[in-house]
Amino acid sequence: MKTPSCVWLLALTTAAVTGTVFGVYERTERNCSVTPPYLPITAVNTTVQLQELRKRMLPMNISAYIIPGTDAHLSEYIAPRDARMAFMTGFTGSAGTAVVTQTKATLWTDSRYWLQAERQMDCNWELEMDVSISSVAKWLISEVPPGGNIGFDPFLFSLTMQEDYAFSLESSKRSLKSIPANLVDEVWKDRPPVSSDSPVCLPDRVIPRSWQMKVEHIRGVIRDNPYMPTALLLSALDETAWLFNLRGNDIPYNPFFYSYTFLTMDEIWLFVHTHRVSEELKVYLNASCAGPLCVQLKSYDSVREHLITYVSQPEVKVWIGTEYTNYALYELITPQEKLLTSSYSPVLTTKAIKDETEQQILRDAHVRDAVAVIQLLMWLEKVVSEGTETELSAAEYVNKCRSKQNDNRGPSFETISASGPNAALAHYSPTTETNRRLTVDEMYLIDSGGQYLDGTTDITRTVHWGTPTTMQKEAFTRVLMGNIEISRTIFPSGTRGANMEMLGRRALWEVGLNYGHGTGHGVGNYFGVHEWPVGFQTNNIPFSAGMFTSIEPGYYKENDFGIRIEDVVMTTPAHTKYGHNFLTFDTVSLVPYDRKLVDTSLLSSEQVQWLNKYYEKIRDLVGPELDKQGLSAEKDWMLRNTEPFESGSSAVCSSSLTFVALVIALLHNIV
Amino acid sequence: MKTPSCVWLLALTTAAVTGTVFGVYERTERNCSVTPPYLPITAVNTTVQLQELRKRMLPMNISAYIIPGTDAHLSEYIAPRDARMAFMTGFTGSAGTAVVTQTKATLWTDSRYWLQAERQMDCNWELEMDVSISSVAKWLISEVPPGGNIGFDPFLFSLTMQEDYAFSLESSKRSLKSIPANLVDEVWKDRPPVSSDSPVCLPDRVIPRSWQMKVEHIRGVIRDNPYMPTALLLSALDETAWLFNLRGNDIPYNPFFYSYTFLTMDEIWLFVHTHRVSEELKVYLNASCAGPLCVQLKSYDSVREHLITYVSQPEVKVWIGTEYTNYALYELITPQEKLLTSSYSPVLTTKAIKDETEQQILRDAHVRDAVAVIQLLMWLEKVVSEGTETELSAAEYVNKCRSKQNDNRGPSFETISASGPNAALAHYSPTTETNRRLTVDEMYLIDSGGQYLDGTTDITRTVHWGTPTTMQKEAFTRVLMGNIEISRTIFPSGTRGANMEMLGRRALWEVGLNYGHGTGHGVGNYFGVHEWPVGFQTNNIPFSAGMFTSIEPGYYKENDFGIRIEDVVMTTPAHTKYGHNFLTFDTVSLVPYDRKLVDTSLLSSEQVQWLNKYYEKIRDLVGPELDKQGLSAEKDWMLRNTEPFESGSSAVCSSSLTFVALVIALLHNIV
Repeated sequence: MKTPSCVWLLALTTAAVTGTVFGVYERTERNCSVTPPYLPITAVNTTVQLQELRKRMLPMNISAYIIPGTDAHLSEYIAPRDARMAFMTGFTGSAGTAVVTQTKATLWTDSRYWLQAERQMDCNWELEMDVSISSVAKWLISEVPPGGNIGFDPFLFSLTMQEDYAFSLESSKRSLKSIPANLVDEVWKDRPPVSSDSPVCLPDRVIPRSWQMKVEHIRGVIRDNPYMPTALLLSALDETAWLFNLRGNDIPYNPFFYSYTFLTMDEIWLFVHTHRVSEELKVYLNASCAGPLCVQLKSYDSVREHLITYVSQPEVKVWIGTEYTNYALYELITPQEKLLTSSYSPVLTTKAIKDETEQQILRDAHVRDAVAVIQLLMWLEKVVSEGTETELSAAEYVNKCRSKQNDNRGPSFETISASGPNAALAHYSPTTETNRRLTVDEMYLIDSGGQYLDGTTDITRTVHWGTPTTMQKEAFTRVLMGNIEISRTIFPSGTRGANMEMLGRRALWEVGLNYGHGTGHGVGNYFGVHEWPVGFQTNNIPFSAGMFTSIEPGYYKENDFGIRIEDVVMTTPAHTKYGHNFLTFDTVSLVPYDRKLVDTSLLSSEQVQWLNKYYEKIRDLVGPELDKQGLSAEKDWMLRNTEPFESGSSAVCSSSLTFVALVIALLHNIV
Repeated sequence: MKTPSCVWLLALTTAAVTGTVFGVYERTERNCSVTPPYLPITAVNTTVQLQELRKRMLPMNISAYIIPGTDAHLSEYIAPRDARMAFMTGFTGSAGTAVVTQTKATLWTDSRYWLQAERQMDCNWELEMDVSISSVAKWLISEVPPGGNIGFDPFLFSLTMQEDYAFSLESSKRSLKSIPANLVDEVWKDRPPVSSDSPVCLPDRVIPRSWQMKVEHIRGVIRDNPYMPTALLLSALDETAWLFNLRGNDIPYNPFFYSYTFLTMDEIWLFVHTHRVSEELKVYLNASCAGPLCVQLKSYDSVREHLITYVSQPEVKVWIGTEYTNYALYELITPQEKLLTSSYSPVLTTKAIKDETEQQILRDAHVRDAVAVIQLLMWLEKVVSEGTETELSAAEYVNKCRSKQNDNRGPSFETISASGPNAALAHYSPTTETNRRLTVDEMYLIDSGGQYLDGTTDITRTVHWGTPTTMQKEAFTRVLMGNIEISRTIFPSGTRGANMEMLGRRALWEVGLNYGHGTGHGVGNYFGVHEWPVGFQTNNIPFSAGMFTSIEPGYYKENDFGIRIEDVVMTTPAHTKYGHNFLTFDTVSLVPYDRKLVDTSLLSSEQVQWLNKYYEKIRDLVGPELDKQGLSAEKDWMLRNTEPFESGSSAVCSSSLTFVALVIALLHNIV
């Protein structure tokens, strides 16, 4: 699934997708410059919540209030009860920041979402397009009088965010004010409650290490740290889920539950909504004792209180990962000598490297997942020409195929099913409003993934059921070349993804093309589909053996088509002629590419070789699974689509050599 | 010239080069574990200076004193009067940190210099090998009692260094104490004085923009900054040299003079040793007036004083580049709202992009420089087999060849002339002690450059006058492939060098080889040979058109040989099929590679094509210059060495096609 770009700030301007496919034309965006303002039916009336919020801002003595789009765990995907920005603004996009003053209300979001914001917001809200914190700060300086306070909920700010705001406001005489009780929550009468479902433990067959083993291992890492921390605070939801081999369902597509963990050498505190913890789970966690391997359950909301008590003791030092610890907890760890920071907690860096069992079960999940995607592609090939299928029906179909696979737990994110110009939109998912019919005249991109008990998958294929243009073929082939070049490269263990990801772009750059998003993200055993800190972003950790990441170059032609080819790969030792400690990637996604779109004359012979080896692997691994599931038509389709390619340039060469042999033989006969 | 590595921390362990070439064997390193200690003749007795320094530490109430290896301008190369670390320790290497307490004295330096340190230091000093600031800090914590102070000269600390020390000492109860009067200087009786030579202005023909134009341009940049700075402080020596089109000779190989510049909208203050400023220079600088285009000369040592006065005014804000501003100036700019920081000053970012004249004259300098290097290579080819030449005599020869070229102002750094195993040492320059005789049995590496009024050059060639081994040929070819792959790549303007430099390593990685240094550094018009912030390091600025950088991959086989191939290239617009705003590199170094070492079967046809086009360019540009200088033997040598290559793999293919044609013709005749 496409990752946001830190490095590539190419403004992918969003084309206007009007709702004309299955309906009469009607202006779908608001127009606040006419009297009365024009508001589409999708716009949300936010007058009441703004009034209420402004009322609550007065006694706090703040001139502005910042409403970020994240939750207290700095999650990339959030639960409905954390959608405060959407509640206040009407805008439901996944990225943005809202700020309210007594007279103004402004939303910042990036180009992917400008159109959606214009459709969902009423005229109480202004839209700002430069999403940098310095741009928000500049606005704040213009709207807040000198000496004024700017309120924020420290639970929704990362340390970096707080620092960036503080830095941008530094010489302005406006101050940030941390308000730990969220003001939007006070206004939000029908805010969804926390689910009452208990977190559940995973079956033994997908757990190579018990939670006790993991706790002991992490304690070892704490003990070995030269700065001698006495405790570790875990804030990211996947940290606690990993440590205790537990999963929940608080966030759509993400098997997490609200939690913090506080780990010392003698104690384990698990902060959860205790009322939802089942008796079975209490037994599993040894929740009735207080020893070093007993998990003491503490109320989720008491985390600050407990942290204050702990930090007030002498000779303690709390280790936190700064990327996922919110400012509300960070600000409690004082004085400085009681704090130890690293970008990521040792749980995240440990979890990044999968052990052999984790590797194997994650590979297995990808074999079953390939069956579902092959079913989809085969079905579409058959039915698209009948003109009855749409982006939405295709997305439904692949979800259904996945749901039939063993251990499936639903999709790992909202399927991106996009035809023609829709695929050129950077973060498109179909809605009834934008839904396009699939035809043989348009390219089609499907980016989807599954959650399985043994692993999370994420794969993108782009296909054409008719006759692609030369440009489409060239662009597709160059995207594929990018995918192959990263996949087949050999590099020293410890190399950063950000220093290699240009290989995914180079074949495009050669002809002046590029893409405006990241090149890949970590993925793992039944966690969020973006499993950081592995991947190709600048803030990702260096690669070592046993990591899984997606590789997903693309190309997007505005108002025309979009291409992305995404596979999950594993870092694996490479055997080289002279050196040791080198790695390469082993592709674990197992679905063939649309061969109609491959121009082999552009490929190097090494690339063709790689492709043919990959296709052999698909046959070897997916073939038996298709047999096992009795899917013989799918098997035939797979075999047809994994025929070896002949090399482009070297094909000319080898065929000419064959010809030489032929001529010589002929000559021999004649003479 | 090889750049230090930020990214690649492969410990290039230094092989022991014993002084056996021109002398009888004798232990060349100290041995402090015997009684009495064994000290080689190269060791320096540091007892007196340590005693004196320790005496001066007492009244300052400091338990330790840090002595960095840089100067007040955070220069990479320093003047003898700034070699405080060398004065205190005896160690003359270019990188290191010394720390003195009342009982101990320790030097930290990296693997390049361990051997040299063991030769130059007496037993007053210990050697530590982990050069990270956190390692120095750990040592300080173990040696300084809690509550103790650690003194440092803030002129010799960058902001980042101060922050790193402060961070590492943070929770330790030891404090840093800024002592602006350097304690080593008080001890150093015969410290070299500041030269009395006046800085000189450059001839008009190498100056496309007068200093007045440059000042006005930089004022425009200040005016356009949204944070509204009122002044700019320039600390790096090349900033002032560039701004006023002036050069000096305070630092070997670097045409700089001690200076700071303070620029406001109405005034220009130049801090120099005023006694050395010639009358002519005063006229050139309009030093007798006080208007916006008059340069007011202020005493070099009064910079802190003037800065304090300026900052004490209301509504002022001083802009500094943090990478080159020392802590002594930084700490004066308070409160925070009077400070504006960026990594690099607008002078450095402006200077990074050469205008058309600067580009042309820098290219011209490289044409003349190529003549000198070709003269050297041709001469060596002839004389090495006679057995009379050495690393030192070859270095002398190339310097002499350069000195005969127009506008030469000496070498741009100490020539690295290294044969056989010496070339495997990362930062080797020959000394009488290590000097090797050149023979047909060893590979030879020469990394050298010249200062010319119109430009600075830097080029490395590696050659073999006998029969290279298969491994040497393969390694050389793969290094060359790295050089070519970076040179020929097409990339969007704004791409960072650090994100592309792996192309320089990839062919080596493929067989498990690598190198432990950076891949290139900026270079320009008669400045330091490392002209930051352009290059391939992580802290370098993104590429745009008109920048010059070296590209210098290498490979080093311990105790055996070293390979580096270095060229200077310019970023230039690339014309692509579909896109705009793409760049590529145009090589401006113009000396052929040793063709004996090129295994064309490893090269792609694109690489062979690139090579042949490069050789054509050498013929087109250096040919006429050789004619002009009447160097016909050199011209013949150049022509011989720039014969086009036949492609490796595609050569097979095209020759087989020729064969087909032949057979067909033959067949035709027969039938």
